[in-house]
Amino acid sequence: MKPSLPQGTRDFGPDAVYKREFIFTTIKNVFELYGFQPLETPAMENIDTLMGKYGDEGDKLIFKILNNGLDHPSKRKQAEDDFEKLLQGKNIKSLTERALKYDLTIPFARYVAMNHGQLTFPFKRYQIQPVWRADRPQKGRYREFFQCDADVVGSKSLINEVEFVSIYNEVFHRLGINNYELRINSRNILAALAELCGGIDKMMDITIAIDKLDKIGIDKVKTELSEKGLTKDEINIVEKYININGNSEEKLKKVKELFADSPTAKKGIEEIEYVFSMGSMQLDSNQQTENRKERDDLSKNPNSSLLIDFTLARGLNYYTGIILEAKAPAEIKIGSIGGGGRYDDLTGLFGVPHIPGVGISFGVDRIFDVMEEMDLFPKTNASGTKILFLNTNENTTVEAYEMLGALRRKGIASEIYPDPVKPEKQFKYAENKNIPFVVREIKKNLCVLKNIKSGKQKTLPIDDLVREINNPSI
Amino acid sequence: MKPSLPQGTRDFGPDAVYKREFIFTTIKNVFELYGFQPLETPAMENIDTLMGKYGDEGDKLIFKILNNGLDHPSKRKQAEDDFEKLLQGKNIKSLTERALKYDLTIPFARYVAMNHGQLTFPFKRYQIQPVWRADRPQKGRYREFFQCDADVVGSKSLINEVEFVSIYNEVFHRLGINNYELRINSRNILAALAELCGGIDKMMDITIAIDKLDKIGIDKVKTELSEKGLTKDEINIVEKYININGNSEEKLKKVKELFADSPTAKKGIEEIEYVFSMGSMQLDSNQQTENRKERDDLSKNPNSSLLIDFTLARGLNYYTGIILEAKAPAEIKIGSIGGGGRYDDLTGLFGVPHIPGVGISFGVDRIFDVMEEMDLFPKTNASGTKILFLNTNENTTVEAYEMLGALRRKGIASEIYPDPVKPEKQFKYAENKNIPFVVREIKKNLCVLKNIKSGKQKTLPIDDLVREINNPSI
Repeated sequence: MKPSLPQGTRDFGPDAVYKREFIFTTIKNVFELYGFQPLETPAMENIDTLMGKYGDEGDKLIFKILNNGLDHPSKRKQAEDDFEKLLQGKNIKSLTERALKYDLTIPFARYVAMNHGQLTFPFKRYQIQPVWRADRPQKGRYREFFQCDADVVGSKSLINEVEFVSIYNEVFHRLGINNYELRINSRNILAALAELCGGIDKMMDITIAIDKLDKIGIDKVKTELSEKGLTKDEINIVEKYININGNSEEKLKKVKELFADSPTAKKGIEEIEYVFSMGSMQLDSNQQTENRKERDDLSKNPNSSLLIDFTLARGLNYYTGIILEAKAPAEIKIGSIGGGGRYDDLTGLFGVPHIPGVGISFGVDRIFDVMEEMDLFPKTNASGTKILFLNTNENTTVEAYEMLGALRRKGIASEIYPDPVKPEKQFKYAENKNIPFVVREIKKNLCVLKNIKSGKQKTLPIDDLVREINNPSI
Repeated sequence: MKPSLPQGTRDFGPDAVYKREFIFTTIKNVFELYGFQPLETPAMENIDTLMGKYGDEGDKLIFKILNNGLDHPSKRKQAEDDFEKLLQGKNIKSLTERALKYDLTIPFARYVAMNHGQLTFPFKRYQIQPVWRADRPQKGRYREFFQCDADVVGSKSLINEVEFVSIYNEVFHRLGINNYELRINSRNILAALAELCGGIDKMMDITIAIDKLDKIGIDKVKTELSEKGLTKDEINIVEKYININGNSEEKLKKVKELFADSPTAKKGIEEIEYVFSMGSMQLDSNQQTENRKERDDLSKNPNSSLLIDFTLARGLNYYTGIILEAKAPAEIKIGSIGGGGRYDDLTGLFGVPHIPGVGISFGVDRIFDVMEEMDLFPKTNASGTKILFLNTNENTTVEAYEMLGALRRKGIASEIYPDPVKPEKQFKYAENKNIPFVVREIKKNLCVLKNIKSGKQKTLPIDDLVREINNPSI
């Protein structure tokens, strides 16, 4: 048989793993710098934990796991009876009890609900794990991909939102993505808009339509709103709202005018003003630091990365306060590379109400593509092999083994070529693996060392090998 | 609904993640020190890649993923027609095209077969990822668990086996598990035994029976062999073989006597002698190093960890040469914590024959249990929060934010308590999270710092905070 991979999944060879690890480690280090702690949940969840949490469309994209042992006589009859219901799209436990997780948020809520008695609140956790979706695969969209989340639950304070603004900034700067944009809005502003346009029960219709603005344009948004039952006058208000422009101060002024008497809008505006002013201050203070400035030549205007954007809507229905979205630098046409927001009652789904929270996510696959396109990955891999011992009749010996041991005890990654094949083949191996040094020969206490890049070689005492590799003279 | 986890799966909270990361990172660092490079393959494989590779029992334990969209009119009829075959235990792609990976070896073989044109051989890869098995959950056996593998493919040299002996030694020493045992044998010896006892086609029957020796005892092994058709005389030879004892030299002598004229046995004995002598030499040389000796008080006899054990069989049928197994210290009744061996033709399963290989695996869940029982995990977590700013009316201010920023730029993990609740609650948070320092108050350029453990506090200039935390005077 000719082997293949399931559609929408990928192998990651050494080079890709090193690059992905660079992203994961950077994000993880920043999360920990801000007091977040790691959590890992299983790939499989009980199917009831997942179904009904992501809307009808989401439900269809959940990978369900077939129960094992269905062929057993005790289970077979029931399975046969239930299969028809399964085909009707129902959730049939005699056939499938488990499913692969669809995101990290619902399993996190399930974890908090199961363990809230033992946890210290506010609970700040981060989680970097794969999730699975039966989406149609396309460029940049996979069926198995990593999510990278941080959430705080058990706190209503907007300080958390400000911290997340700062975390986005720190991560993107460490990765070298300097001219990103971080947009903020509040669901309370969108709620106020809904109150003006047909009532609060229109809120998700309006939010979902506005969320598509970038993709489909204003005319199709208006058509969609009309189909959802909004009047012409109401659609005009939505259009006026969408067209709010100017710098952040001007936008705030116009929004205040539009929602003059709305207490809902007032709440949203206060949230935005706090997060925007405190967030901007944090970013300014980071950028004023000397060692920061050196890296920051791309962002002359210190506030440029944090923007108020009233057309930011975000599709998920559980957000209730501030929402955020990070966008890749405009010259890289990739769009969102992260997002998040505040939710009031995620664990309520699992019987533990009144635990408010706020969280963000990094889109690591897209960040990977951005970094490739901007050529931002480190050029050398610190953990790769530094030295290869050729395998010749002379040096597949006690000396070679002992030198390997000595080098490794000094932390220098080293190998011996296992088979006594032609030297050319062994040199080719070193080249392909980017191994900088090769020991060609060992004679008593001397060895012949070759620098693959420069092509130079020298004979030196074995005891000098570590020094030479750390400070090459050839 | 009351949330729960699928049987046999686990959440890992912060403490467990830190400890598991300690094990993974240690193993990863050693693999890289020996020139191995990382590979990651998807959780899902095409079902044909997995089925038929693990025997009938294995096939039953593979988690299959139900195809999505079965309720679609175009698929429904076919699904109904095929369901009966699925219940007969058949592999029906109209219902399930994909499955969760059962181990890391077969996906690795599939990767090598798909990419062999691009890879540099010998290809040395390591892989640390979860696998899934529908086993009945019990103590120490999970349905989702991590495997930690390293393999070399494309080399027949026994140097690879010696390297793996050395890798086991290095990893267990770095983890602090000093008095482990590493047992070796060769499948060629077991093949020679089969040649004496009913022919080579009895080899897997004999191997599987001997593999159960520890669990079921010699009498039941003999019964099993009798059921498999071995004569009394043949069973007597097997018993004689099992009873070979003494130190490694004595054992080798007795095996040579038992298989006097067998070329198969001769090959196996040569393999064992090479790996045992070179492996022992490597371990000796490691242990003679000064900084090693300090850690090594438990193993006075430098060779104690490497043993020849002719009753070592290992269940998997693809091994063809040296086999290895690592056992936890005898006082911890946990058994195998790692194993592996040589195989001739794993990628042949995927149409690419003649790529020999050898690999090992670490049983990380059991290693975790051993380390807990022996109290070997580091006592402090280097990445945890070092300092908490209390949230009082005074210091939820620009100063607190600026200090947070300054500390984080110095790499000191720090937090501000987000909500202005009672100080007791905020102190409790610091205690529960093992945060060593709390800033109680900020007044102009001074702050009041408290050491949670000692209970002492002092007022100091803000600029001295970093120095005080790195070198506490209170």
